[in-house]
Amino acid sequence: MAKTELLVVRVPFYDTDAMGVVHHASYLHYLENARIEWLRSQGLSYAKMQADKLHLPVVKINIRYKKPCRFDDVIVVAATPRLEGIRMIFDYEIKKQSGEVVLNAQTEHVLVDENLKMREPPTEIVQKIKGD
Amino acid sequence: MAKTELLVVRVPFYDTDAMGVVHHASYLHYLENARIEWLRSQGLSYAKMQADKLHLPVVKINIRYKKPCRFDDVIVVAATPRLEGIRMIFDYEIKKQSGEVVLNAQTEHVLVDENLKMREPPTEIVQKIKGD
Amino acid sequence: MAKTELLVVRVPFYDTDAMGVVHHASYLHYLENARIEWLRSQGLSYAKMQADKLHLPVVKINIRYKKPCRFDDVIVVAATPRLEGIRMIFDYEIKKQSGEVVLNAQTEHVLVDENLKMREPPTEIVQKIKGD
Amino acid sequence: MAKTELLVVRVPFYDTDAMGVVHHASYLHYLENARIEWLRSQGLSYAKMQADKLHLPVVKINIRYKKPCRFDDVIVVAATPRLEGIRMIFDYEIKKQSGEVVLNAQTEHVLVDENLKMREPPTEIVQKIKGD
Repeated sequence: MAKTELLVVRVPFYDTDAMGVVHHASYLHYLENARIEWLRSQGLSYAKMQADKLHLPVVKINIRYKKPCRFDDVIVVAATPRLEGIRMIFDYEIKKQSGEVVLNAQTEHVLVDENLKMREPPTEIVQKIKGD
Repeated sequence: MAKTELLVVRVPFYDTDAMGVVHHASYLHYLENARIEWLRSQGLSYAKMQADKLHLPVVKINIRYKKPCRFDDVIVVAATPRLEGIRMIFDYEIKKQSGEVVLNAQTEHVLVDENLKMREPPTEIVQKIKGD
Repeated sequence: MAKTELLVVRVPFYDTDAMGVVHHASYLHYLENARIEWLRSQGLSYAKMQADKLHLPVVKINIRYKKPCRFDDVIVVAATPRLEGIRMIFDYEIKKQSGEVVLNAQTEHVLVDENLKMREPPTEIVQKIKGD
Repeated sequence: MAKTELLVVRVPFYDTDAMGVVHHASYLHYLENARIEWLRSQGLSYAKMQADKLHLPVVKINIRYKKPCRFDDVIVVAATPRLEGIRMIFDYEIKKQSGEVVLNAQTEHVLVDENLKMREPPTEIVQKIKGD
């Protein structure tokens, strides 16, 4: 089983909108950071992957927004990866410190090279995701 | 049947990322603009709704990304609403001028008042969505 | 004298913040778009410059914010370039439709290649800026 | 003398652009966070100020960009406030871990109420800025 990475985010003012809450698109930034921190927690650097011309674009995203967040709220993003064939899937839950669920989400990724051609994930990543 | 609104977007440089393509979160901005333009095309102003303390937050979002876009690409966002009970659902397709599909998406919304309490959509909006 | 390019912007909802007005950082996006449209108005494509590995990064920026804008406001960005040695400077004024000045700004740019090394602006650009 | 607050930022992928570096507008977000952390370091909560209908909008900004940053760079934002009459001014320096200066900036602010009318800064803030 893959490890779940927890990322703490304090909601920045610039992520709010005129409704007084975090704009729905801003959460995608928090999910991206959580994925990158999961990789880092496994000794994998997304910056190094990029230097090696490997990218992990999002091909699918599902989000269910449950509770709004406001400026300065402290929230925790839990990210857990799994594999489906050559696709890497991350499941997320964002919670407030009170335990209230802010959203549940899922992103699906494929590994691509600099020409955006699909590649099989290297054994190292597969093993990390499987939790071996 | 509700009218489909077409919004033309020229991809701004600031929406690209270091992969050289539009960042996946930026598309949510294009979808939001397309929804707002659909409302306007029906004589409904989202600014006026907001002044009346009515908001239409996103409660669910699904996106399938099919082709990347680059800076200065001209793309067309098609947005079509429908109702499921009191929820308003928009279906989207983004295409390049070549006809290539960039992404398909769906957003689900509920109408809320200033306290973020759910409200039934007013008859005027229901009729517009039904295409009456 | 260089031509002034006018860019009309309808303020998107996602550019607002919890103060109910356009977030100050969003205006930099409008200025960027106005510069790119100035280039286009002169037959110069910033996308083509980028394909040719030439970039025009911002090295200096000054903004005086005078009036806030709100969601759905229609504003006009006026952008006028000039040269100071090898530096390209754009002067901007953003106005509401009422004529009220929203902000005045200035950005300074140098032309760089893919290694971010400074380059002299090509004669074509110099002539366009001088209005020859 | 006011205390200088240091904010450490790891550059997120979503803040980069197709030039491969941090987009110039993203730095305004880092400066905003640094201001808010300065307030917090003094026991002042910007969230509480907002709840009390007090805002601190940017009325002027100057930035000199010196070195580009890339995804995953760790940078330090130093923010130091001072007063000029009723205006609050923050001076910033952003440095890489190597000590290289990324940019120098200055933002000018006034305190406004919910109607965006100017207010004198309360004694508490004045004393904190003066370092009393």
